[in-house]
Formats: sequence, C-alpha cells, structure tokens
Amino acid sequence: MDFLRSFPIWEKLQPEEREQLAQAAVYREAPKGAMIHNSPMDCLGLLFVQSGQLRAYILSDEGREITIYRLLEGDICLLSASCAMNSLRFDIAIEAEKDSGFWVVPSEIYKGLMARSAPLANYTNEIMASRFSDVMWLMEQVMWKSMDQRLAAFLLEEAALEGTGVLPITHERIGNHMGTAREVVTRMLRYFQSEGLVKLARGTVEIVDFAGLQALSEK
Amino acid sequence: MDFLRSFPIWEKLQPEEREQLAQAAVYREAPKGAMIHNSPMDCLGLLFVQSGQLRAYILSDEGREITIYRLLEGDICLLSASCAMNSLRFDIAIEAEKDSGFWVVPSEIYKGLMARSAPLANYTNEIMASRFSDVMWLMEQVMWKSMDQRLAAFLLEEAALEGTGVLPITHERIGNHMGTAREVVTRMLRYFQSEGLVKLARGTVEIVDFAGLQALSEK
Repeated sequence: MDFLRSFPIWEKLQPEEREQLAQAAVYREAPKGAMIHNSPMDCLGLLFVQSGQLRAYILSDEGREITIYRLLEGDICLLSASCAMNSLRFDIAIEAEKDSGFWVVPSEIYKGLMARSAPLANYTNEIMASRFSDVMWLMEQVMWKSMDQRLAAFLLEEAALEGTGVLPITHERIGNHMGTAREVVTRMLRYFQSEGLVKLARGTVEIVDFAGLQALSEK
Repeated sequence: MDFLRSFPIWEKLQPEEREQLAQAAVYREAPKGAMIHNSPMDCLGLLFVQSGQLRAYILSDEGREITIYRLLEGDICLLSASCAMNSLRFDIAIEAEKDSGFWVVPSEIYKGLMARSAPLANYTNEIMASRFSDVMWLMEQVMWKSMDQRLAAFLLEEAALEGTGVLPITHERIGNHMGTAREVVTRMLRYFQSEGLVKLARGTVEIVDFAGLQALSEK
C-alpha cells in the first residue's frame, strides 16, 4: 500500500479521493509471459506498475504484432481503462515481459475521480500525451527508418532494459516487437553478424559492437 | 463569436471561464495552401475550426510527409498547443487544405483554464484520446495494409470529403498524404486504371468504380 502513495499526484488529491483510490486499487501479480489485457470488452482499469515490465502491443488479423511501448516501475497504463474514455477507439494487448506486480484501479472508479478532480484529469492528460508521443515516435521510425536502423535501435533498447549485451531473445520475438516477419529479422541479424556488430547463438543475440549499432541506428 | 458558443462543453463552463475563453480566442483565416503551424517553437494554441479544412502531418528530415488527420468544421486541434502539455514530445505541421476560418485560444490561457476546470480537462482528455485513436488507426494501416489497399481507402476518403469522385489532386500530393513517393503512387494509379477502378487525366483522378475500390480497401 505504501507504493500506492508514490502515485505521482497523490499529494494533490483530496483526502477522500486518496481514500477512494486506495480502497479501489487491487494489487495483482503476473508471471513472465502472462496476458494481462487482451480484448476490447475486457476493460481492466488503470494499471500502476510496482515491479517488473509490461509490454503493450497491437495485433493484426493475421496474428502479426508490433510493440507500442513498455511499462516499467512507476509507469501508468491508461489504455487498459479504455472504457473510462469514450473517444479511445482502439485496443491494445498487454502482457508481462517479466514477473510483474501492479495495482489495478477499476475504470469506473477512475473515471468518477477524474470527473471531479481537475488535478487528476490534468495528470491523466499528461499520461495520455506521453503515450501518444511514444506512438508518434514509433510512427516516425516505421515511416522514415529502414529495417536495419530500427533493428539496431531495438537491440540497443533491449540491452539497456536488460543491463547486458547478451540478449536471451528469439528472432521471432524480435519480429513481434518490430512488426515484421521472423525471416526478415534472421536475414538482417546474419548481415549484422557478418559486419561484426553481433554474435548469434541458439536463443541469444550478443551485441559485440555497441558503437557500431549506435551509428547504424542514427545514420 | 456565436460560433464560439458551439464549443462542445460551453454549457459546462463557469460564466467567468466562458468569458475568459471568449476574450482570449482570436479568429483567424488562412487561404488554401497556407501553413498554419510548423515549428515546435511556434506554440500557436488550441485551434477550433469554424469553416474549411485543415491537415495535420509529419515531415521526415528528407522532406517526406504523411497526413496524420484532417480537421473539419467543429473539430479541435490540441497538438498546436503542445506547450500547454509537458508530455507532448512530438511536433506536427498544420496547413489549410481549403480556405479556412478558425479560432485560436492561446496555449497559456487554455492551460490555466484546464488546471481549474475538471470538465474542460476531461473534455481535453477526450479530444486527445480521439486524435490518439486516429494515429493508432493510421499505424495499423501502415503496418498491416498493402499500398494498394491504403491508396484505395485514401481515394474513397477524398471523394467523401470533396463530395465528388473527380478528385483534383496530383500524384505527388497523394504521396504526401500517404507517406510514400510520387513514383509509387503513379505506378499504382496506372494499375488501378488498367483494372477499370479509376480514370487518370492531367491533375485529376476520377473514381470510376467505387465498389471496386471499396472491396480492394477492405480485402
């Protein structure tokens, strides 16, 4: 419950609003790989991540995926509370990328709090603006960058998240993050290996030349 | 000024908030083709469209463009007031696609009103959610649809906006809407023509087979 008090605008909420939030919030855990939110019907609520790592992504009709953003400790996910906002006309899936713990505030409770509290509504605006910015960044990557630039950037992001250059990740999983086919990833990783940027082994991609990948991602 | 009273949550604002909004709002006109908002530094303010048609788009370093959304009568653009929200970390350009008239509410005034008014902050959330949804729809198109599907959908959208199947638009302009090169558009339009879907002439694309384009866009 102490963690809940680290909710960013806790101090700006009225005592009764804090109490309502604290009473409504439910702590949940999800093991690595678990699906947390999937269908548009399943309006889970606002998520406030205490530990671990969540991944928000979209799915095509054919089952292709692209990662929209990641949620780390202290991050808030609004899109899992889409029924709290009439104008959110899209749906995302959310899975646990690591063993994770998070608080869920039911959509209806959050919506009610927001309707009365200008600070909470303004803070919610900021969260939405931040996610919107993530998606615009992704849009620019997808539109203007080549696949090798995007793959280089993805590997560096993974290394930063994992704290190591030896990434335990399959080519298929990379394809699901980037919205592309496994074969495309494999072909490009082999090219990266021939250029001395990475070393491939079963189930891992090891970054050998961080500076080289950095230069490629920014070219 | 009467138009300003059609601002969607006018009735929910306090009398002094209405007065502040009305006093701060400035009516502006822009001829077809005029740039309304461009640089990240130029934090114009919130736009409320009275007449005409605006186009919001992003630009690559190489000058390529892709349309993010259109704004018609009664629509509100928040992204031109990016300095009113700390977490908006991207910038868009806005141009008049037709002779347009719109109200501008300076960002600082709007931010101040939002900070005090829960209804205005919640309404702003809905506007942002709506634009966010537009961008997610576009992301899905770009990721999962082929260029011919997207071009078919674009031509139908244009015809709906213009109220005619004879579209006075160049191939370059279509490329700028879709984020692709003129050559790609020309090649695909010629293919559409050979399939009996459109008829091409200098400076116009005429839709011949609406149902065929519809089927293609949904395939």
